[in-house]
Amino acid sequence: MSEHGESLDPALSREDFEDYERAELEELIGQHRPGDLALLLNRVDDEAAAALFAVMSHEVRAEVLPDLDERRRDSLIAEMPASEIGEIAGEMDSDDAADLVQDLREIDEARAEDVLSGLDEEQRSDVESLLLHEEDTAGGVMARELAWGALDESVEDVIGRIRELSRDREVDDLYVVYVVDKGHRLVGWISLQGLLLAPRGQRMEQLQNPDVVSVPVTLDKEDLAAVAMKHDLPSVPVVDAEGVLLGRVTMDDVYDIVEEEAAEDIGRISGTDEDVLEHSSLAVIRQRLPWLLVGLGGGLCAAIVMSAFEATISRSLQAAYFVPIVMGMGGSAGIQSSTIVVRGLATGELQVEDLWLRLWRELKVSLAVGLVCSLVLGAIVLAWFGEARDALTVSLSLLCVILQATVLGAATPLLLKRTGVDPAIATGPFITTGNDILGVGLYLGLVHLFL
Amino acid sequence: MSEHGESLDPALSREDFEDYERAELEELIGQHRPGDLALLLNRVDDEAAAALFAVMSHEVRAEVLPDLDERRRDSLIAEMPASEIGEIAGEMDSDDAADLVQDLREIDEARAEDVLSGLDEEQRSDVESLLLHEEDTAGGVMARELAWGALDESVEDVIGRIRELSRDREVDDLYVVYVVDKGHRLVGWISLQGLLLAPRGQRMEQLQNPDVVSVPVTLDKEDLAAVAMKHDLPSVPVVDAEGVLLGRVTMDDVYDIVEEEAAEDIGRISGTDEDVLEHSSLAVIRQRLPWLLVGLGGGLCAAIVMSAFEATISRSLQAAYFVPIVMGMGGSAGIQSSTIVVRGLATGELQVEDLWLRLWRELKVSLAVGLVCSLVLGAIVLAWFGEARDALTVSLSLLCVILQATVLGAATPLLLKRTGVDPAIATGPFITTGNDILGVGLYLGLVHLFL
Repeated sequence: MSEHGESLDPALSREDFEDYERAELEELIGQHRPGDLALLLNRVDDEAAAALFAVMSHEVRAEVLPDLDERRRDSLIAEMPASEIGEIAGEMDSDDAADLVQDLREIDEARAEDVLSGLDEEQRSDVESLLLHEEDTAGGVMARELAWGALDESVEDVIGRIRELSRDREVDDLYVVYVVDKGHRLVGWISLQGLLLAPRGQRMEQLQNPDVVSVPVTLDKEDLAAVAMKHDLPSVPVVDAEGVLLGRVTMDDVYDIVEEEAAEDIGRISGTDEDVLEHSSLAVIRQRLPWLLVGLGGGLCAAIVMSAFEATISRSLQAAYFVPIVMGMGGSAGIQSSTIVVRGLATGELQVEDLWLRLWRELKVSLAVGLVCSLVLGAIVLAWFGEARDALTVSLSLLCVILQATVLGAATPLLLKRTGVDPAIATGPFITTGNDILGVGLYLGLVHLFL
Repeated sequence: MSEHGESLDPALSREDFEDYERAELEELIGQHRPGDLALLLNRVDDEAAAALFAVMSHEVRAEVLPDLDERRRDSLIAEMPASEIGEIAGEMDSDDAADLVQDLREIDEARAEDVLSGLDEEQRSDVESLLLHEEDTAGGVMARELAWGALDESVEDVIGRIRELSRDREVDDLYVVYVVDKGHRLVGWISLQGLLLAPRGQRMEQLQNPDVVSVPVTLDKEDLAAVAMKHDLPSVPVVDAEGVLLGRVTMDDVYDIVEEEAAEDIGRISGTDEDVLEHSSLAVIRQRLPWLLVGLGGGLCAAIVMSAFEATISRSLQAAYFVPIVMGMGGSAGIQSSTIVVRGLATGELQVEDLWLRLWRELKVSLAVGLVCSLVLGAIVLAWFGEARDALTVSLSLLCVILQATVLGAATPLLLKRTGVDPAIATGPFITTGNDILGVGLYLGLVHLFL
């Protein structure tokens, strides 16, 4: 079963499952890897998902569950006895087990406690300590299982510890050994490659690389992913305020965080949710409606502004024809600059101190694009109505609206960031709506002045 | 120098560099890791970047260059002699060296050839073979350096090969050994962790895991990243049509691809570029202007539609007040469904065969949100103008426009995908513009009918 970019056998369409016998389902599961099975479970309906999940081994379930949409995971564990969930959790690394217990707590607190108390001593203490951290922090995504060595330990000693981890806890994704001092404070690292090539008797203090990147346990997980990406780390060690090594976050979690963050950013621009194919219509409605209602409110304000200029519009009906253009262009220009600034702040390429420089650049760019757009529009209006004054008014308004929207779009996220608010909300409907209202007012005000 | 989410020392603001002496610059560079230096070089102006780069060692330069924006990289290598670029390339893995030569080819073909011929035999042949692949494919991002073992080789043999790779080629990011048959075809894998724990005399055929995920050399790099993420791979082996192992793509490249892809998707929605903080204003203008001009064209069409309904508008001026709302809401609803569908298609969670099911879901959702929005708007219009007929007209139009925009937004990317066109263009300005024109026509048509 080699992988060729095709995510799933095309034969696996939703409808097929009803005709499958248990043996056929088992064969199908045996032919696919956990990653593919997770995608499949997300796509099919509750009944088919339950049927497929029922014939999977605990080992496969433990790998599939963390990759599922939250809604699918909840549907599968909602009715499952604590003992069965406990057996699946027993096959998981501590981070995934903690997530599972956390999910279950939201469904059934008592059953979650049963699962916890059913785990073996060591895993229970790991999971319990992980559950104390906020979900969106380094502590909330880290796993407790990791390879470590004390400064005075030899390569042989550390290999012995890795052997134990592999055998007793079934950890199979170790890439780096973290070196700690007597107080279990992180002081260095050595790659598994380095360990493999080192003489068995050598001590960690001679071998270790003291330039170790770590993140505090309270760090936001998006910032953690940025650290992993900036330094190309296969796993990121997590430490407490004293520098004591608490856990590590591996690249598969970084992949998930980056993907989630991208979906979130896109969602903020378009008013959609990160869980792009959420199955429940009600959830989709609940999530899209507020965004549309903000837009509706903005549009109403624009309508009120227009009605305030009733006299102007009734004298020159043509003025109304260009309201949509002026609004639309202002909205687009504003979203362009705010998106750039929000992304730049998120990736760290833009700093709050760059405010004035950024505004100056945006102003230059928008002056240029604004001039082109207004000249084009002016020429068309002139050709259409043959009135130089109309053309000039529409054209000048468009330029002003584009300039104003750009500056507002670039400045808002920077100012939000400075005051400690998440700048990403600036790419939401608020900036578009604000620009709509300002734009219509600016445009009709100018029309009123000139006519 | 531990890492705490803070991407850069705040003291490192752009203006400071002019006052720095060479020794101070060297100290500053010594205190920061390559990932931080790359971010810094991207932020400062050409002159400061050149000054900083000048005092870096070839080793640091080799790590910094691949992480730079293309424009910054070009500004640094534009005037650099071939011998110097060659020395930097000599410190790089083959994939980064190939990218550097490729960039240089676009600036100065002859110098690129000089750099190539200055590389040692083995690296030159690796880089030359990589340059044959398309930039956006697995072949274009893979590196040739990897750990492999033949089926009949022992653990000892493979460790010897890893030792050579570490020493001669300075490869330090090996996570997996790929196992090949006599024809160098990929047949299995074993993690470095597994190798570390295995008896030194054991052969690969006993140790290897035959369930190996690989991607074809021609696969699009975004699909490659999806494979890495789905199966949580720290590196992805790349094979030719016969299954022969050609190279591997490591998780740092996957991070870059995912980040780039997200920026691209966001750019398509808002009309901004993936290179979010591109320094040249001209480039920014060239990239934003077409998007705004499409919007301008759409707005003009809407104006023409409005002028066609001149009689209707002059009889009821209020009708014009609600044009912006109807247009804006249609645009928002359309972008919401198209974004969902495009993201779903990109992540593989949505398949083209789901067209009807998806349309049905979107229709249900939009009927619900449309009903809420139109009732709210209808009530407000009734309160405002006291005319039931006006309220009904505006309200009904809004519902129709939201339904139409949703269906168009969901269907367009699915139909594009089916015909082999990149569905992501549907989140661009075209769908908004299309919805604007249809929305105004639909609305004014209804107003005309009712009044």
